[in-house]
Amino acid sequence: MSNMYKVYGDIYSGNCYKVKLLMSLLGVEHEWIHVDIMQGETRTPEFLAMNPNGKVPVVRLTDGRYLSESNAILNYLAEGTEYLPASRYQRARVLQWQFFEQYSHEPFIATSRYIIRYLGRPPEQEQRLQEKAAPGYRALDVMERHLHSSPFFVGDRYTIADITLYAYTHVAYEGGFDLSRYIAIRRWFDRIEAQPGHVRMEG
Amino acid sequence: MSNMYKVYGDIYSGNCYKVKLLMSLLGVEHEWIHVDIMQGETRTPEFLAMNPNGKVPVVRLTDGRYLSESNAILNYLAEGTEYLPASRYQRARVLQWQFFEQYSHEPFIATSRYIIRYLGRPPEQEQRLQEKAAPGYRALDVMERHLHSSPFFVGDRYTIADITLYAYTHVAYEGGFDLSRYIAIRRWFDRIEAQPGHVRMEG
Repeated sequence: MSNMYKVYGDIYSGNCYKVKLLMSLLGVEHEWIHVDIMQGETRTPEFLAMNPNGKVPVVRLTDGRYLSESNAILNYLAEGTEYLPASRYQRARVLQWQFFEQYSHEPFIATSRYIIRYLGRPPEQEQRLQEKAAPGYRALDVMERHLHSSPFFVGDRYTIADITLYAYTHVAYEGGFDLSRYIAIRRWFDRIEAQPGHVRMEG
Repeated sequence: MSNMYKVYGDIYSGNCYKVKLLMSLLGVEHEWIHVDIMQGETRTPEFLAMNPNGKVPVVRLTDGRYLSESNAILNYLAEGTEYLPASRYQRARVLQWQFFEQYSHEPFIATSRYIIRYLGRPPEQEQRLQEKAAPGYRALDVMERHLHSSPFFVGDRYTIADITLYAYTHVAYEGGFDLSRYIAIRRWFDRIEAQPGHVRMEG
């Protein structure tokens, strides 16, 4: 059993859920070790030895080495599978959307959800929350426009680019984002949720 | 000439400089098209047709297709070269550092430089600037610790992970960051700047 993947994470974190979803689609056996961010469990010496940047998820590979950053983990796991295209250009497009997610989407949409769901929307965070609305909707607009003409983000097929963007978008409402006018995004949710092996965030 | 790479960017943007540096190391001929961010040139319909997210750099590939997100572009260009390791694990580690850069480094170190250098440090941005100091130094600490025991970020060799992190770190002083105690980082600067084909930001 020691050579089974171990995932250190919080299942309600979209970044951690990405790993769970891909492992479910691929049928990869793994042990999930819950890490409580709010209790400082990502700041212990033991955790920092696995990821010096102190963030979940961290995956312990079957050979005992560690990997962090959700989207790097997805690329590792998807290598050679249908979830990562073989063509050089399409792989770069997958990365393009993954970097879009980490820079132009997650800091607004995921962080708003964090302020509301994890921190309980404290008054001193209200201005910060308000400031995240416009850039969050801008990211959703970029996604919506793309999905008007394509069923998925890269090459008309379900790839890890979709997993990356689905993770926080499908719970964006928990961050106060209203998705009712994002018709293409909601249809894309349906396509993703209909995939064999799909698993929900709450398991 | 129409099948030469075209780079749309601002050479003083670290994200754009990454592309220039790798192209110089690889000896890739390209045409540089200056885009003035401050004049709204990333928000025109023509620019948004190349990158719907409205950010530089954008590269027009030799076949006419477009690619954006600096780190995705680096992965595309480095494919099959010495700057991207062949092993699955090491490639994932390259990505790990690149996502670290976009999420835990760039929003603090590059953005502080932007507030000072591009916006002229307006008083209304002073609090935002102050808030970026601690997370910026935390990112530098993570880098420093890594470089104490390794000459480069992945596999003891110069890779695109180094290019990614070098771009904004070597001009971090322009964002108000004092690197005097970051001895390992400064030695790493020396190693990078000594590489054949190295080119400075200001060209």
